[in-house]
Amino acid sequence: MKKVLVIGEVLVEIMADTIGEGFLQSQPLTGPFPSGAPAIFADQAARLGQPVAIVSAVGDDDFGRLNLDRLARDGVDISGVHVDQDRPTGSTFVRYRENGERDFVFNIRHSACGQLHVTDVVTKLVENADHLHVMGSSFSSREFVKLNLEAAKALRQRGGTVSFDPNLRKEIQSVPWLTDAMARILKMTDLYLPSGDELTLLTDAEDSPGAIAELLNSGVRAVVQKQGAAGATYCDVNDTITQNAFPVRECDPTGAGDCFGATFTSLWLRGFAPKRAMALAAASGAIAVTRLGPMEGTAGLAILEAFIQAHRRIT
Amino acid sequence: MKKVLVIGEVLVEIMADTIGEGFLQSQPLTGPFPSGAPAIFADQAARLGQPVAIVSAVGDDDFGRLNLDRLARDGVDISGVHVDQDRPTGSTFVRYRENGERDFVFNIRHSACGQLHVTDVVTKLVENADHLHVMGSSFSSREFVKLNLEAAKALRQRGGTVSFDPNLRKEIQSVPWLTDAMARILKMTDLYLPSGDELTLLTDAEDSPGAIAELLNSGVRAVVQKQGAAGATYCDVNDTITQNAFPVRECDPTGAGDCFGATFTSLWLRGFAPKRAMALAAASGAIAVTRLGPMEGTAGLAILEAFIQAHRRIT
Repeated sequence: MKKVLVIGEVLVEIMADTIGEGFLQSQPLTGPFPSGAPAIFADQAARLGQPVAIVSAVGDDDFGRLNLDRLARDGVDISGVHVDQDRPTGSTFVRYRENGERDFVFNIRHSACGQLHVTDVVTKLVENADHLHVMGSSFSSREFVKLNLEAAKALRQRGGTVSFDPNLRKEIQSVPWLTDAMARILKMTDLYLPSGDELTLLTDAEDSPGAIAELLNSGVRAVVQKQGAAGATYCDVNDTITQNAFPVRECDPTGAGDCFGATFTSLWLRGFAPKRAMALAAASGAIAVTRLGPMEGTAGLAILEAFIQAHRRIT
Repeated sequence: MKKVLVIGEVLVEIMADTIGEGFLQSQPLTGPFPSGAPAIFADQAARLGQPVAIVSAVGDDDFGRLNLDRLARDGVDISGVHVDQDRPTGSTFVRYRENGERDFVFNIRHSACGQLHVTDVVTKLVENADHLHVMGSSFSSREFVKLNLEAAKALRQRGGTVSFDPNLRKEIQSVPWLTDAMARILKMTDLYLPSGDELTLLTDAEDSPGAIAELLNSGVRAVVQKQGAAGATYCDVNDTITQNAFPVRECDPTGAGDCFGATFTSLWLRGFAPKRAMALAAASGAIAVTRLGPMEGTAGLAILEAFIQAHRRIT
C-alpha cells in the first residue's frame, strides 16, 4: 500500500456548547478534542488501514498528549511529531452561529505547530513517502509551506503523487504568500480536492466547467469538488461522477471535509473505481458530521460499508 | 488617592467543570473568564475606587476584548494594554483534583502578554504612578521583570511605594532568573504579601518568626502572610495582627489571594488601620472563593463592609 505523508498542524479544538456569537462571555464549552485538518486527514486514512505519517509539533502538555495518543491508537505514524518543551499545543475555540457560520479564537502560529523541526526522522519520512497530501490550512506557517513544496517536488520526481485540499481558514486568508504557495502546489497536484467556491480560487476561469477544464488541462488528473450537504462531484478527462450527500442529522460539520478527502484519497491510491471511492468518501463525511468533535467521526472501511448498506435499506 | 500601577499578564481562564486529572479527555468546561493575577489585582483595586492602571498586552480576539471590557467597566485604566495583531490572548486551562491541587495547560509566554510594548503611554503611566504592585507570576517574561524592576526603582527614588506578591506559579518555578529577580524586587518592597511557604522563599531564615524579623530588618515596612482558609497575619515592627478567614463555601479559590492583596494594599495606601484593612481584605478573599472564575468575585467597599456585617450577625 502507498505510504501517505501529511505535513501540518496538530491542534486541540474547544467547542462552545451553545449557538451564538463568539466568546465575549463565559459559557459552557466542551473539549479539548484532537484536531487540525492534516491530523484529521491522517487519522481517517489510518482508520482505513492506509500507512500514513504526520509531520508536526505539539507542546509538552495534556493537549499534545491527547492528540498523540489518539493518532497513535488509530495507527498514524507520529515519529515525525516534535514535542516542543517551550511552546504550547495549538488550539482553536469554535462557536457556531445561528446561520451556520463559525466564530474562532485561534492559537496556531505561535504555538508548537507554528514551528517546524526538520529532523532526520522527518527527512526519512519524506524520502519514504509515496504520496503527499497537502492541506492549505497549514500555509499560515512559512516553514510548513516550504517543507510541503520540497516534499511535493521530491515525491513527484521519483514518481510519487500529490493531493491538495486548499482548505482555506478565515485566519490565513490574509497571509501574503498564500496564493503563490497554493499555485505552486497546484502545479504539482495529481488529485485536487477543493470545497465549494475554492474550485475557482486558483484558476483563471471563473465558472465551474471552465475551472475543471483548466485544471485537467494543466496536469491535475482528477478534481473532486466537495459541497457539504449538497454532495460532491468527481471529474477526470473521461468521467464526471456526481455523489449525493447521505442525509444525516448534522451535529458538527467540522472535520467532515477532511474525512471525505482522506477516504477518497486513500481509496484512489488503491485504485478503487472513482464511483465507489466517492460513495465511501461521502459515507465518511456523513459519519463525521454526526459526531461532536472534528476527529471523533473517523471510521474504518467496514463501518463505511455498513453505513452505506444501512442507508440503502432505509431509503 | 495614590495611583497604583501593575505590570503583568492578562489572560483568560477556562475551567474544567469536573474534578479530576488534567485534560487528556474531552470534558465539560466553562469559560473564558477574565484572568491573570495582575489583572485580578487591578480589577479589585479599581472596584474599591483606587486609581489603578495595568500595563500588559492582549490579542486582537474575543479573549482580549472580554478582558479589556471587564477591566474598563470596573474602572481600570487600560491605556497601557497593547492589542497585539499577531499573537493571541494568553490562556490558562485549569482543573481541580480531588485533593485541591490543580492541573494547568498554559499559553502565556508565547501569547500576546509574553511580549511587552513600552510605548509613550506606558512610560507616562510609570512616571505618574505613586505605587507599584509586583506579581511574581509575571516573571516568566524577562521583559516584565525588566520593566517591573525599572518602575520599582523609579518610583522609590521619587518617594513612591512598592508592594510585592511572589505568587509563584507551577509554570515559572523553573525560570532561571526568577530567584534573582525576586530578590531584587524584594529589596525595594515596602509591603510584602507572600502566601504560605513563600514567606521563607527569599529569606535566609527558614522559620516564620526568623523570616519576618529578617524581612522587617531589611527595609520591608509590613509583611502580610496569606494562608488561605487558615487566615492571614500582618506584621510590622510594632504590631502582629492575626485575621481569621471568613468561613464560606469554597467554589473556586483561584484569584482569592489576588483580591485579598489588592484590598489590603489599596486600604494600606489610604492609611487604614492594619486591623481594619486585614478584615476587609479577608472579606475580599472570602467573596472571591465563593464565585466561579478568578475575577468574578471582585467587590467594592460597600459590599465588603456588608459582608463583614452579615458575618457578624451570623456568628
